[in-house]
Formats: sequence, C-alpha cells, structure tokens
Amino acid sequence: MINYLGRDVPDYVEGYGKVKHYLGAFKTVPEGTAYGPPIKAASPRRSKFYPNLTDLFKGLGLKSGMTFSFHHHLRNGDQVVNMVLDTAAKLGLNDLAVSLTAAFPTHAPMIGHIKSGVVTSLRTSGVYGPLAAAISGGVLPKPVIFHSHGGRPRSLKSGELKVDVAIIAAPTADDRGNLSGAVGKSACGSLGYAFGDADHATHVVAVTDNLVDYPLLPASIGQNKVDHVVLVESLGDPQGIVSGTTKVTKDPVGLVIADLAAKAIKASGLLKNGFSFQTGAGGASLAAAHYVGQMMREAKVKGSFALGGITGYMVDMLEEGLFGNLYDVQSFDLESVRSMSRNPNHVEVSADLYANPFNSGCLVNDLDAVILGATEIDIDFNVNAITGSDGVLMGAAGGHPDTAAGAKMTVIVATLLRSRLPIVVDRVITATTPGETVDVLVTEYGLAVNPSRPDLKDRFVKAGLTVKDIHELKRLAEDLAGVPEKLTFDGPIVALVEYRDGTIIDTVRAAGQ
Amino acid sequence: MINYLGRDVPDYVEGYGKVKHYLGAFKTVPEGTAYGPPIKAASPRRSKFYPNLTDLFKGLGLKSGMTFSFHHHLRNGDQVVNMVLDTAAKLGLNDLAVSLTAAFPTHAPMIGHIKSGVVTSLRTSGVYGPLAAAISGGVLPKPVIFHSHGGRPRSLKSGELKVDVAIIAAPTADDRGNLSGAVGKSACGSLGYAFGDADHATHVVAVTDNLVDYPLLPASIGQNKVDHVVLVESLGDPQGIVSGTTKVTKDPVGLVIADLAAKAIKASGLLKNGFSFQTGAGGASLAAAHYVGQMMREAKVKGSFALGGITGYMVDMLEEGLFGNLYDVQSFDLESVRSMSRNPNHVEVSADLYANPFNSGCLVNDLDAVILGATEIDIDFNVNAITGSDGVLMGAAGGHPDTAAGAKMTVIVATLLRSRLPIVVDRVITATTPGETVDVLVTEYGLAVNPSRPDLKDRFVKAGLTVKDIHELKRLAEDLAGVPEKLTFDGPIVALVEYRDGTIIDTVRAAGQ
Repeated sequence: MINYLGRDVPDYVEGYGKVKHYLGAFKTVPEGTAYGPPIKAASPRRSKFYPNLTDLFKGLGLKSGMTFSFHHHLRNGDQVVNMVLDTAAKLGLNDLAVSLTAAFPTHAPMIGHIKSGVVTSLRTSGVYGPLAAAISGGVLPKPVIFHSHGGRPRSLKSGELKVDVAIIAAPTADDRGNLSGAVGKSACGSLGYAFGDADHATHVVAVTDNLVDYPLLPASIGQNKVDHVVLVESLGDPQGIVSGTTKVTKDPVGLVIADLAAKAIKASGLLKNGFSFQTGAGGASLAAAHYVGQMMREAKVKGSFALGGITGYMVDMLEEGLFGNLYDVQSFDLESVRSMSRNPNHVEVSADLYANPFNSGCLVNDLDAVILGATEIDIDFNVNAITGSDGVLMGAAGGHPDTAAGAKMTVIVATLLRSRLPIVVDRVITATTPGETVDVLVTEYGLAVNPSRPDLKDRFVKAGLTVKDIHELKRLAEDLAGVPEKLTFDGPIVALVEYRDGTIIDTVRAAGQ
Repeated sequence: MINYLGRDVPDYVEGYGKVKHYLGAFKTVPEGTAYGPPIKAASPRRSKFYPNLTDLFKGLGLKSGMTFSFHHHLRNGDQVVNMVLDTAAKLGLNDLAVSLTAAFPTHAPMIGHIKSGVVTSLRTSGVYGPLAAAISGGVLPKPVIFHSHGGRPRSLKSGELKVDVAIIAAPTADDRGNLSGAVGKSACGSLGYAFGDADHATHVVAVTDNLVDYPLLPASIGQNKVDHVVLVESLGDPQGIVSGTTKVTKDPVGLVIADLAAKAIKASGLLKNGFSFQTGAGGASLAAAHYVGQMMREAKVKGSFALGGITGYMVDMLEEGLFGNLYDVQSFDLESVRSMSRNPNHVEVSADLYANPFNSGCLVNDLDAVILGATEIDIDFNVNAITGSDGVLMGAAGGHPDTAAGAKMTVIVATLLRSRLPIVVDRVITATTPGETVDVLVTEYGLAVNPSRPDLKDRFVKAGLTVKDIHELKRLAEDLAGVPEKLTFDGPIVALVEYRDGTIIDTVRAAGQ
C-alpha cells in the first residue's frame, strides 16, 4: 500500500498487526472514548514502600509478557531502565514490552536483554547509540514503534499503549508517593513525560534515590497517582542526567544558518508582542534563539512563552523579560532545573499539555515559530529525523512532528551537506514529519519556502533574504557532493513510524550495523 | 432492607434505581475500570471563545436531559449556576440533571427551575437556605444524592456521574482555556473541586469575568482540558465569594469545647513533629486550632500539613512555621486566596487528591487529627451532618465522612444542646458519617470516647480530662432539655446519602416546610 505521502507501508505488519494508514497531518480524528485504567483504592496507613526492586517484583507479582514504561528525563545518566530490566531478567521474566520515551547510549545493556528474550518490543520517540545500531540490524523480534512526544500521551489515552507497570524515576520522593524532579542528587527538572503514565498505568511505581520526609511539596506527581515507592542507591550518573550549561555554537556555518533563520522569523511578521517560540538544544538552534533574542531586544518585543525542552539559554531570556513564561516538558541543563524550582513563570508541563493532538488543545498549537533539525529533507519538505542517509537509526522524532503541525511557522535548519552527503534529497529515506507541516528550510546557502506558503516567500523576498527553490538547493548540494548512490532497503521492517495521530506514516527497514 | 448501620434503605428507589448498600466504612472496594470520556481533538488556532451563554448553548447543541456540573468555590456569591440555568430555561431545555458540589442561599432561583421542570435531579455535598427547605418538602421529582467531597471524584472516575457539560466558574481565564481562581475581581482561590470535571466531562466550559492575555500562568486547570471559554460580565458578588477574615469564636461555651478538643489532641500523643491537622471554618473549630497552635508553640512541635478548606487562621499558622504546608481544596477567605497565590507551600489540590477513597492514596489518609461538627451524634457515634433534629436538610456532608475515615483521630465538637434539643441521641435521624470512623465527641460537659478506642480513653483519663460515657452525655442532655419527642419520617424519600465509597448509607424522607 502506498500511503498519502507516497510511502510504501503494508496493511499488516508481523509483530504489530493491522496498520492504520496516514491520511494527512490533520485528517485523522479521534474515535470513541478514552481508556479507563483499573480503579484503585488505598487504605489509610497502608505502606507503599519497597526497600528494593526484587521485593517490588515479587510483591506485585510482576510477570512475563507485561508492558513496562519509562521516561527519559535522566537521559544518558539513567540507570533505572537497566536496573529494572536486570531485575526482571534475574527473576526469569521474558517477553516484556518496553515503552521508553527515548533511549540513550546508557541503555546499551538492553541489547543483551533483547537477545536473551527478556525484552521483545519497544516503543520510543528516538534511539541513540549502540541500541539504535542493533535495532537497525534487526535484533528485536517485533518492529520498534517510533512515536512523537505528543503521540505518546495520545496512545496512553486511547489505550493503544496499555502500561502494566510505569516506572517513574523520581529524583525526590516521599514514602506516600509524592514525586519531584526539581531537587535531589539526581535532579532532572521536569518530569513531564511521565505524567500520562501516572494517570494510566495499572501499577505506578516511583524509583527514587532521595527519600524525604512526608509530605514532599511542591510535588510534580501526587500521592493519589503513585502506588509504590522503591528506594535505590542511585538513579544514575548526574553528569549524564543534566549537562552543565548548554552553549551556543561557535561553528561559523552554524552561525550563518542561525542568523538566516532568525531573519526569516523576523521577516515573517510573527516577531511581535506575544511571540511564542520553540527551539531545540543543539548549538545552531540555540544560536538562532540568540539572534531572535537580539531582534526582540532591539524591537522591544515582549514574547509570551517559550516551550519544549528548556535550556539555560531560554532561562536567560525569561529572566531578561524577553518571554513571560517557560513551559518545560524536559529540562536540559542545571540552569533550567534550578529555574523551574524557583521561578513561578517557569512551569513543568505534561507531554499531554505540550503536544497531544487529541485533547482540548495542546501548547504546540499556540506556537508562532519553531526551529527544528533534520537528517534529511526532501523536495516536498518531508523531513527525516530518525535515520541517517544510510538508513540507520540515529535520531528521534521527539516533538518534531508535533511542533511542526502546531506552529504558525516551522523552520528546518540544516547544513546543506552532512558527512559529505546532501541533506536535500528527492525523497527522504524515512518520513517522520510531513511536508505539509514544514514551511521553511534554512541552509548556509539560503532558504527555501514550501510552495504552500507564498505569503512567507513574499515576505522573505521583500526582506532581501536569499530565497531559493528547494530543487535549486538540492542541485547545489549535488554539485558539491555528487549525486548520492540511491540506496534501497528491502530487508525486514525493523521500525514503524507512528504519526502523532496514531497512524503509521512510514516504516524503517533493516540497514547497516 | 436494614443496612449494616441499622438504617432502613430500600433495595430500589424510584428516580435513582438499584441501591448498592453500605457494608462498613472500608468494606466496599472498587470494581472494574475507570470511565473513559470521549477523546477530543483541537486543531491549531481553532477558537474556543463564546461571547455569551446563549451562543454557547446553541453552538454546542446542548439539549434537554443533559447533566450539568458546577462547583461551589464562589459559595454564596455565585451567580454562574443561576445564569446557566436561566439560559437553559430561556432556550426551552428541561429535565436537566445538576451536579453542584454545594448549594447556597444564592441558588434559591433553582427552586423555580425545579418547579418548571428545567431541573429534575441534583447531586450535591450539601444544601443551605431556601433550596434545602424546598427539597425537604419534596419539590424535586427525583431524590437528591448527597455525596462527600471525596465521593464525588470517585463517582466521576467510576462513571456513575457522567457529566455532559462541566461549567467551571473561572475568576481568571485566557481564551485558550487556561484557568485560575487566584486572581480577578471574583477571585476565590482554589478550584480544587472542579479538577475532576475538567478530566471527565464531555464538554468542559469555562465561564469567566476576567479574560486575560494568553497564556495565563500559573493556571490551575490547563488548556488541554478546557473546550470552551465564555465571557460574562460578572461571576457574582465578591462579598459572598470570600469572607473577610474568618474569626475565632468569642462564645464562652465554644471556647470551653475548643479548649477540651485541643487538650484531647495533645493527650492523644499525636501532637508531635510531623503532626497533620484539619479543621473546619466554624468559630469553635478555629478556636480549637488556636489552642492547638498554642500547644505546638509551647512544645516546639513542627507540623507537616494542614488540609481542607483553608482560612486565614491556617495561613497564619503556616507563616509562623507551625505547619510546613497547606493543602487547599477550597479557600474560605481573602487571606487564604492571597496566600495560595504567593506561597509555594500553600498549594491547590484536587478533590481527588484531597479525599477520594478510590485512588492511589488521598491526603485525608495521612491526617493525624480532624475536628468536625455535627447536627446530631448517636450513642454508636454515628454522625448526622445533613439534617437538623427536625429532619429538615440544613447542612453538608462535605469532607466529613472522608476526613473521619482517614484521620488517626476524629473529633466531633458540639454543644450538648442545639436549639434546646439534645445533640446526643439514641439514633441520628440521618447517618452521614459512620460511628466506626468517629473517635471522640467533645462537648462543654466533657468528652466521650468511642469504645473501639480504649487506647485514647486511657490517655485522656491519664491526662485528667473529663471523660464521660456517651450514654451519660445523652442522659445529661435529656436532663437539661427533656427527652425529645421521637419523630418518625414516613414521607417519600427526598434524598439518598451516598457514602464516599458509592454505597447508600441512609435516606432522607420528606420533612418540615
């Protein structure tokens, strides 16, 4: 079946089932009613506490075939996923489904658990490191489901993702299950991706290395949603949990792109009082934020909010008054962790509020501009954020499809070549974000505008920006690097790319290793 | 059918259906799964705004037979209920079910809507004023269901209460549906009772008289849960919404009772570091808090939290450091409204977190002591909080059954006589809180201890408090006032008293008027 985007997606995929095909970015609407998890009860003074994971597994009678969920706020410092899966393996469990909002190099031990049959399936927004290569090589018996940050709370609400055991890595907790990420030796800031798990899982388990006196307050997730609390020695490596200060790029090419992206935002007419903005934590994205900030300062523009994964750079903009508020679903660095715990205008938000298309209105819908990266972009403005030019898994859908769909202007920033291969191609190897939601591509050789947005093109031309046709950028890239060999992937399907609305927008077939 | 508590409750009640009988305070456990409301969606930039209620009704196609829910944070200043029902009447709707968390004299116009068939049923935690008398007289075609504050979120979660249209009176809102009660001309503080409505209703409608720039932050209820925003000129009368400063009683009898209640708490051994406490906003309850505060000061006890409806008196205790935190489901006065908006240790909580017995653990479960009132208490310590000695509706279940069930020590404070009638009786006219959850009755003539708590009695005797048998207090009351004429109520059932677990603990039959 060739879907709406021209991608070849089977109607049925072994290990997944019947496919609901992608129909366009805003075409699929929700059906039916929300999943209702089992209703719980708690008697006064019943203990929720377990001294270790083994006792928890035995106490709850956790067994093979269950679905375990995890969140990635501890990023590459996380050891909770490994601890829990090691415990499962030790106790002889197998055929576990894992939902981990993003997987990092620290999660490489999961490869062993996959090979031994402890873990047989995975849902995630992205995979980095050895696990990515192993999945590309076909290590998992069932295809990985890649979701967006907004798609995941949607799947929890719809019941497509039913979680038996939600493991919430809690940098601070009390023994009644009030949780916070703001403080503790493993502080990670926002716990926003885990909120939906606490609302929907059959067993909600907090794992903490910092148990404090009752009641912990303010708490991000309350005792009315947490069933069990487990104390462990350490959640992981603080160095990997948050970086120091996230820095603006010094790479001159990156600065050229950032400057042009900022000018495009200014020329769009969106940069006025009430301006709302999201950008990634990459060096070039931060540089674009830096230039946008300068323009706001000069034009005395007071923005309304910045959104998404938050860095110290956005905190500075908040504190300077360039933005009134920060909505934080994930805190990238120490400065954002500190800011969230002390500034009432820097608030933690759930992934549902952040980006779920199927609720009463998520925040990405109110974004003016978003700056996003890409591993590839094609002449129809479809973006690949998951696989490299070699088809191997190397990135994350994350909030990419969500913010692109919501923002008034979606800007992709990318160098024209990456590892000496053109970024602009006829057809992306993997489509993660549909072209109809992407407005502008900014490269160091100029920008290209989606033909669906002649209004933007006019504004950019009038502002004197270097506007090129995307085909022209593609030819330029090919002049520089040569026309790349056309790769074909006909191995087994190793991953399905789920669009934020729950349809399958593309597949990923085995490659590389 | 004579139930576990000896109350005569039919198996089937016209206008209600099959009755689930009360089996004991902790005997009924939840069954099955939570109600899943319709899944919603919101396109970017779709407006949620309606300029008035008539347009809202027409726009949503609201119709006869629907269930409308309201919360009572605006108390006797509320005009939102009246406006909405007037609009429904004007548009010809009838047979509406109303869920209003508590009804006040300001809601007297509902009597007219009941008589004309616009409103045919009511769920509430309590009714005050003309509506109470009218219901006691049998004005409603279906029996009123009285619930506790914890029972209501339970019934929303179980789907027993299915809300078509949740009306959230929002003292401040933006046009995307972020809501707050902390500021605005109709500021009421916490919106805690409305949280569950936002989670479960088919249409979630915010009605505001203070529309502010997007995004409103901090917001109590977020845009991901609110479907529509309606602007009206005024939510009601600020004088009736919050009182000025709530004051400790000066009545000498009230002070005697308060002093003894405080001494009982001290003698119980609970008054140590970590002490948690709830008390009502009545003058005698506040006086008891005053004495408890003095004891904490003297003994250098640092309490953990105070809970429930919050008054300036509790705010003073927070600010003095006597308690570390306040959990606020309802802010009674201006001082508590102000405190909640500026003090991070004074937090707004949902009714679910406050008191729902069927979640992972509500706050009342962690109360050490609660001080509650009563209109009657019987020799088995069953408490009536809903009807007077004449059987006429005059009060509220509120958080009474919830806190009694959760707290380590539940203290009822009451004068031995009320309107020259004994408070202590053989059998309460209406049972709202079961005796097994009530530990101590404190009167101006001494206190009585539930025989199930010999440990407390020992402590009180050792502390030299005036301990009496409850039969003795009853006799004393009868000596003073005479044995009251035994009233029998054999009129039609006008109300059912739902225990917090969803069973029916008692009925109220027509009386008075």
